[in-house]
Amino acid sequence: MKGDWTSSLDLLIEREGGQGVRRGIESAIRQAIHDGRLKSGVELPSTRALASDLGVARGTVSEAYGQLNAEGYLLTQQGAPTRVAWTPTAAEAAPPKKARPALDLRPGHTNVSDFPRRAWTKAICHAIQKVPAEGLGYGDNRGRVELRTALAGYLGRARGVRTDADGILVCGGFTQAITILCQYLRERGARAVALEDPCAPRYRDIVRRAGLAVLPVPCDSQGMDVSALRRSDADAVLVTPAHQYPLGVTLSPSRREELVNWARSRGALIVEDDYDGEFRFDQRPISALQSLDGDHVVYVGTASKSLAPGLRLGWLTTPPRLRAAVIGIKERWDRGSGLFEQLALANLITTGDFDHHVRRMRGSYRRRRALLLDTLARCTPGVQVASGSAGLHLTALLPGDMAETDLVAAAAQRSLLLRPLGEFWAAPAPAADRPQGLVIGYGTPPTHAFKPALAALAEVLTAGHCVHPADDPQTPGLNSRSAGVTGADAGRRI
Amino acid sequence: MKGDWTSSLDLLIEREGGQGVRRGIESAIRQAIHDGRLKSGVELPSTRALASDLGVARGTVSEAYGQLNAEGYLLTQQGAPTRVAWTPTAAEAAPPKKARPALDLRPGHTNVSDFPRRAWTKAICHAIQKVPAEGLGYGDNRGRVELRTALAGYLGRARGVRTDADGILVCGGFTQAITILCQYLRERGARAVALEDPCAPRYRDIVRRAGLAVLPVPCDSQGMDVSALRRSDADAVLVTPAHQYPLGVTLSPSRREELVNWARSRGALIVEDDYDGEFRFDQRPISALQSLDGDHVVYVGTASKSLAPGLRLGWLTTPPRLRAAVIGIKERWDRGSGLFEQLALANLITTGDFDHHVRRMRGSYRRRRALLLDTLARCTPGVQVASGSAGLHLTALLPGDMAETDLVAAAAQRSLLLRPLGEFWAAPAPAADRPQGLVIGYGTPPTHAFKPALAALAEVLTAGHCVHPADDPQTPGLNSRSAGVTGADAGRRI
Repeated sequence: MKGDWTSSLDLLIEREGGQGVRRGIESAIRQAIHDGRLKSGVELPSTRALASDLGVARGTVSEAYGQLNAEGYLLTQQGAPTRVAWTPTAAEAAPPKKARPALDLRPGHTNVSDFPRRAWTKAICHAIQKVPAEGLGYGDNRGRVELRTALAGYLGRARGVRTDADGILVCGGFTQAITILCQYLRERGARAVALEDPCAPRYRDIVRRAGLAVLPVPCDSQGMDVSALRRSDADAVLVTPAHQYPLGVTLSPSRREELVNWARSRGALIVEDDYDGEFRFDQRPISALQSLDGDHVVYVGTASKSLAPGLRLGWLTTPPRLRAAVIGIKERWDRGSGLFEQLALANLITTGDFDHHVRRMRGSYRRRRALLLDTLARCTPGVQVASGSAGLHLTALLPGDMAETDLVAAAAQRSLLLRPLGEFWAAPAPAADRPQGLVIGYGTPPTHAFKPALAALAEVLTAGHCVHPADDPQTPGLNSRSAGVTGADAGRRI
Repeated sequence: MKGDWTSSLDLLIEREGGQGVRRGIESAIRQAIHDGRLKSGVELPSTRALASDLGVARGTVSEAYGQLNAEGYLLTQQGAPTRVAWTPTAAEAAPPKKARPALDLRPGHTNVSDFPRRAWTKAICHAIQKVPAEGLGYGDNRGRVELRTALAGYLGRARGVRTDADGILVCGGFTQAITILCQYLRERGARAVALEDPCAPRYRDIVRRAGLAVLPVPCDSQGMDVSALRRSDADAVLVTPAHQYPLGVTLSPSRREELVNWARSRGALIVEDDYDGEFRFDQRPISALQSLDGDHVVYVGTASKSLAPGLRLGWLTTPPRLRAAVIGIKERWDRGSGLFEQLALANLITTGDFDHHVRRMRGSYRRRRALLLDTLARCTPGVQVASGSAGLHLTALLPGDMAETDLVAAAAQRSLLLRPLGEFWAAPAPAADRPQGLVIGYGTPPTHAFKPALAALAEVLTAGHCVHPADDPQTPGLNSRSAGVTGADAGRRI
C-alpha cells in the first residue's frame, strides 16, 4: 500500500508498506521540522481538521501528535492548539565537511581504505541476530567470553602468547590498556615506569598524567639497553620487543632473557606492546616476549593496526597476581567494552576471515615497504634502515649532511606530511647531537595515494641530496632489503 | 562450482563458490585442527603429495600451507616436513554455558529481550557501508560528529538540554562519564563530592576510588535536601533530579533553583544523572536540570536504559570551562568510543526509529508498573510508593511490621531476586532506625518472565503480611496510582 497526498499542513505524507498512516504523518511532520519548514512556535491544525483533510481517523492523528510530543517535536496541551516545540540549529542541519587530506606518510596509522567492510558487516549482523537476550545486559567486565576465547586461541598460535580466555581483558585499544596498567601500578605504590628512548611521545604523556615518573632507557640495534634499565629505579617497563617503535629493531634473544630476568629479580612488570605483531614480512614472526614469562609480562595487542583504529578494540593478558585488580579498574572505568564489535571480531577470528585479511594486508604492506626502500635508496645514498622487516613504518636514518626538520618543512610545502625522528626522543637536544631521521608510515595512505606520496617524498629527498643510483652503486644495506620487489609484485595492489 | 573430495589427509575439502581451492584446503585443515583431528606435531603430506591427491597445482597447496603457517596453525620449514603447530585447549573448544537465570526484580536493568535487533542491524549495516575510509582511523576524541549532532537535537527536544554538537562528549556509558568527571575534579584540586543518600552504592565506590571523599546528603519527598548540601564542603554533587535513584521522587522546582544557586555561588559542579529520562508515564517529562544552567550542570545520559547496557554508550554535556580538560582525559583513557555503534545510534535517532522504540518500551514499562502497583496494593496494605511515575523501578516502603531482609530471604527461596533498600544507604544503621523497603526493578525480566516474577513476589508479600483487598479497602495512594491499568492494556505485551 502506498499513497501520497498533501494536507492542510502542506506536507507530503507517504504511506509506506507496513508502516501505516500514523507513522507516515509522524515522518512528514518530523521531516518538515528538520528541514526548517515548520519552525518552533508554529500552530498545527487540530487533530479533527487534519484527520478530515487526510481522510483518516482522528485517533490516528492524535496518536501521531502524541508521539511527536513525547519526542519533543511538538507541544500538545489539553485545550490549547498543538505547536511546534523545537527547531534544529544550523550545525545540526549540516555537519561540517572536512578538507581533502594531504598526502600522509606519518607513522601510527593503517590503510583503512582496505578495511574488510563486507566481512565485518557479515560478522556484526551475525552477532546482533544470534546473541542471546541476556547477553545484551551488563556483561563480564573482562569482555565477551566468545572474543576472549577466540583471542586466546589466535594469540597462542600466531604470537606464541600463553594464556586462556580467563587471562584476557578486552579493552578500548592500546591506550586504555596502558592507562589501566598505570592506574594499577599507582594503586600498588609504584612510582616510575621505564620507557624506550625514543618512543611514541603520547605514551610518556599518558604515564606522567597517571601520576608516574617516566624513566627513558636508550635503545640500540638490539633494542632496549637492559643494563641501563637495571641501573634505574623502574617498577615497570613498557617495551616494543617485536619491532621497536619507532626505530624498527627487534629485541635480541639475549636481551629478551635479560629483560625477563630483571623483572623476576625485581618483582617488576613488563608491558609488551605488540602493536603490529601481525605484520612481519621476512620470516615467521618472533614469539611474544610474554611466552617467556606470563607472570611478569603483560601482553598488549590491538585491532587498530590489523583492522581499524576506529573500532577501539584492544586486549591484554592478565597475570593471575594482578588479574582481579585490573578487572576492577576496567569495571570502575566503563564496565566493559561494546558488545557487538567484540562479538564481530570473535566471529571474524573463528571463521578465518581475520587471518585472511591480515595476510592480504601483509602482502600489501610488504610491497609498499619495498617500494619505499627503493625510493630511499635511489634518492638518499647513505640512508640507514633498521633491519626488522615488519610493520607499517620504518625509520630512515639520514646521512650526516641532511637535517630532518628541513625535509619535513620542504615536504609540507608539497602537502606531504612527514614526521621527524626528533619528536620521539625523551629530552630535547641540539640536532647535531642526535642521529637525523624520518619515521615514515607507509601504511597510512589509501591505495590511490601511496604512489603520489612516494613521488612527493622522492622530490623532497632529491632536492635535499640527490645521487642517481648509477652514480653510487654502493648502497648494499638497502638494496638487499628491497630485493623483495619483484616483477610479480609490481602490478599488484599497494 | 562446488565439489567435495577426500585426500591423503582424510579431510573433507569443500570448494565453495568464489572461494577457490586454496581457501577450501585451508578451511579444511583449520577445521581439523580446531576439532582435534589433527593434533600438534602431526606431520602433513608434502605439498607435492597433497597436490597430486587433490588434482590441483602444487603451488596452490604451498600457498595454503604458507597461509596456515602465517596464522600459526602449521610450522613450515625449508627441507623439513610441515607439521601441525597448535592445538586448542579444552576451554577454547567449548565455552562454558550459563545456568538458567532466576526471576529477577532487582533494579538497574532493562528488558533487553525487546532490544530492536532489526532496526539496529539496519542502522549498523548502513554505518559500515557508508562511513568514508578516513572515518575508520583515530577519530575525534569527543565522538563522531554525526552522533553528537543527533544527540544535541534529540536532547534538546526530548529533555530540554541546551547544547550543540561541540558541547557533547560520547563515552562508555554513565560509568565512564562519572569516572572522567571525578578525574577532572581531582586534577582541579577538588576533594569531596556530595551524593544523594540513598543512592546506587557503586557510585560511592567510584567516587572514593577516584580519590575523592563522599559526602552523603539526605533525600526527602522533594528530592535532595539542598540546605544540607549547603552546609557541606562539597566541590561537586551527583544528583538524579528527574527520578531519584532509588526513591523515585522528583526534585521539586524550588529545590532545582536552590541547587543551581548553590553551584553558582560556590563555583561547584552539578552532575545530572538522567539515567531513565526517556521513561516518564504520567506527563510530559520535566526538563533536564541542565536547561537551567549549562555552565554549572553537566548532563549525563545513557543508551543503557533506552536500548541495552551491552552497547556501553553514554554521553555528557561539557560546559566550555571544563571542555578541553574533560576531552583530554577521554583522549588519554581510550581515544574515543567505538565507531560503528556511534554511527548506528546516530542513524537510529535521525530516522526516528529510536523514538519509536522508546515509545514502545514506555508503554510496556507503564503497564508493568501498573501491574506491580496492583500486586503491592493487593498483598501489602500500607505500602508507600514515591509519586514519580517514571522509569524502570519503584521503591516500595513497607509497613512497620515488615522487614526487608526477611522478604529478600523468602524471595530467594522462590528463586526470586529482590534488592532491599538498606543496600542503598551511605552508612549502616540498625533496621529499626530506617524505613524498610524494596527497590523493585520491573524493567528487568524478559517478557515471558514478568508475570511469573510478579506471582512469586505476591507469594512472598502475602506470606509476610497478607490482607485481602476486601478486608482493607483503604489503600488510596496506591489505588489511585494504579488507575492506569485498564482493560485495554490487559492483553498487551508487558
